[in-house]
Amino acid sequence: MKGPILGWDVGGANLKAARIEEGSQSAPKVLERPFPLWRERDGLPAILAGTADRLGGARNMAVTMTAELADCFATKREGVAFVLDAFRTAFPDVEPWVYGIDGRFRSAEAARQRPHQIAAANWRASATFVARTFPDALFLDVGSTTTDVIPIVAGRVAARGRTDPARLRTGELVYTGALRTPVCAIVRSVPLRGRPCRVAAEHFAVAADVHLWLGRIEQDDYTCETPDGRGRSRLEAGARIARMVCGDMEMLRPHDITAIAEHAARAQVRQIAGGIRQVMRRLGPAAPRVAVFAGQGTFLARSAAEAAGLSPRDMAEEVGAATARSAPAAAVAYLLAAMVDP
Amino acid sequence: MKGPILGWDVGGANLKAARIEEGSQSAPKVLERPFPLWRERDGLPAILAGTADRLGGARNMAVTMTAELADCFATKREGVAFVLDAFRTAFPDVEPWVYGIDGRFRSAEAARQRPHQIAAANWRASATFVARTFPDALFLDVGSTTTDVIPIVAGRVAARGRTDPARLRTGELVYTGALRTPVCAIVRSVPLRGRPCRVAAEHFAVAADVHLWLGRIEQDDYTCETPDGRGRSRLEAGARIARMVCGDMEMLRPHDITAIAEHAARAQVRQIAGGIRQVMRRLGPAAPRVAVFAGQGTFLARSAAEAAGLSPRDMAEEVGAATARSAPAAAVAYLLAAMVDP
Repeated sequence: MKGPILGWDVGGANLKAARIEEGSQSAPKVLERPFPLWRERDGLPAILAGTADRLGGARNMAVTMTAELADCFATKREGVAFVLDAFRTAFPDVEPWVYGIDGRFRSAEAARQRPHQIAAANWRASATFVARTFPDALFLDVGSTTTDVIPIVAGRVAARGRTDPARLRTGELVYTGALRTPVCAIVRSVPLRGRPCRVAAEHFAVAADVHLWLGRIEQDDYTCETPDGRGRSRLEAGARIARMVCGDMEMLRPHDITAIAEHAARAQVRQIAGGIRQVMRRLGPAAPRVAVFAGQGTFLARSAAEAAGLSPRDMAEEVGAATARSAPAAAVAYLLAAMVDP
Repeated sequence: MKGPILGWDVGGANLKAARIEEGSQSAPKVLERPFPLWRERDGLPAILAGTADRLGGARNMAVTMTAELADCFATKREGVAFVLDAFRTAFPDVEPWVYGIDGRFRSAEAARQRPHQIAAANWRASATFVARTFPDALFLDVGSTTTDVIPIVAGRVAARGRTDPARLRTGELVYTGALRTPVCAIVRSVPLRGRPCRVAAEHFAVAADVHLWLGRIEQDDYTCETPDGRGRSRLEAGARIARMVCGDMEMLRPHDITAIAEHAARAQVRQIAGGIRQVMRRLGPAAPRVAVFAGQGTFLARSAAEAAGLSPRDMAEEVGAATARSAPAAAVAYLLAAMVDP
């Protein structure tokens, strides 16, 4: 393939893009931005065009997506068609290549015909790319919303699940992440002055509030929306956490908030470690000993890998921070380059 | 107190009002409507005025609220002040009486001064009212969003918790309800073709979808918003449930949806029964044998009461369906009437 390649990962809440120059050895230029598709869907073509311009453009494009799951679409078929329509509007002269869950690229037309073959294939792109450097490893990508737990054995992606429902059953997809996950989806109860307290089943606080309060992320990392539309200061995050037990900052003290946040963070680590253990059990003696992690929640990935007895390796140290952070977007670009330019 | 009384229960998601004629023996006229305060807060005075007009108006008003917890308010103090401001705007000539968690009425001014004394006191109003008819009972009010589990012993409300955080710890408040509760706050995993499947930590489906799919509520009972903004048909509810395992109606069959829905409904019953058992354990030999239930989720209340070994009694059969359904609003009206008109 001649010329630069733009790789895209179109999620329901985030958009990632990576541009690589000809050949596959160069470092990519990446862009990542929150994009709440379910609310701003009509803006997608403009966002795609603007992002491509900022990265320098390219006539070759590789696409992976999870946006089709967003609940503004009645079915995945509708979601896949919508995203591909947006590419056609944004780049009328480009025929994008869409990465499939079988590891092959398809034309947009073929992708529309069989949407379940290309829906949510981003994990496979990343893992296939990682396998080049780590032929035996568990690839752990803790994003803003979800976590991928993908085994790589003897240089090949050894995932059992292909569709998202199958991946949720196998532990290869754990639906918890560093930012957007509602606290009420993480814990049923939290400690409050030494005793368990049920939590409110409301979208009052998210994982980003927890990790900001605990100092594991900075305000600039809190790229998703806040549940209450207020700011991203530590105090505002604390107030949201207090509301999870129907309290406020007049009723709860800072160390009450810390106890709640630590409990929620531990629960996330436990849930990710549960996915890891399920994958490891299935692999038996072939199970890798090393976890290679990427994504926005590397602090969760590291803890979960250690809890499951794996030695953690940071993908950023091997392939660069930009590639690791926008793993699927960079990966599809490199994979498309390799496909025709071996 | 001379003349009719309007009782109000101002929630964060629902508004209930009940009008009783002079004296406390008449049947109330009640109105109940969804009102997403966090989004439409500026409309509250007009809604209050319109509701009063439709019920026939009154110069005496009794108020209880939970709206102060809504996350459009930084603190409960701010929320209480906002609601009382709305009453002043809607009814400039009325001085409302605000029911407190100690069972006493306060002026609006006193309520503003000590907002934690009147925040979320609606459960106490209902239980105090129910105690007149059932001097030994567990009062179970399963609403759209939350469940109150209030013991009545020897004619008195025997709750231990007063504030919401304390009530969440004691089992007297279980934050699950018949309509608005996100499915991701009810279950971590569901059965999918015979095996456990993790669920998406997203606001894809709510309890109303579950109970509509199972035929326990009708479309007209689905009074809250749908998570995806689509309709309330059984098929649309099913699609939302399918999305909880990242599936759609092309991937899942109707009996897959039914298995997920039944699992979620059972989990809600178990959570409510857990609250009941916690309250019963604390009371020991004084624990009541009868559960009196009210609210929109009587089908959940009945199952939970039976699971906890209590014999269920429908409050509607004793005090009328309207009073039972809008229990806190009718209760504060009757209690205010009784306060000065014994």
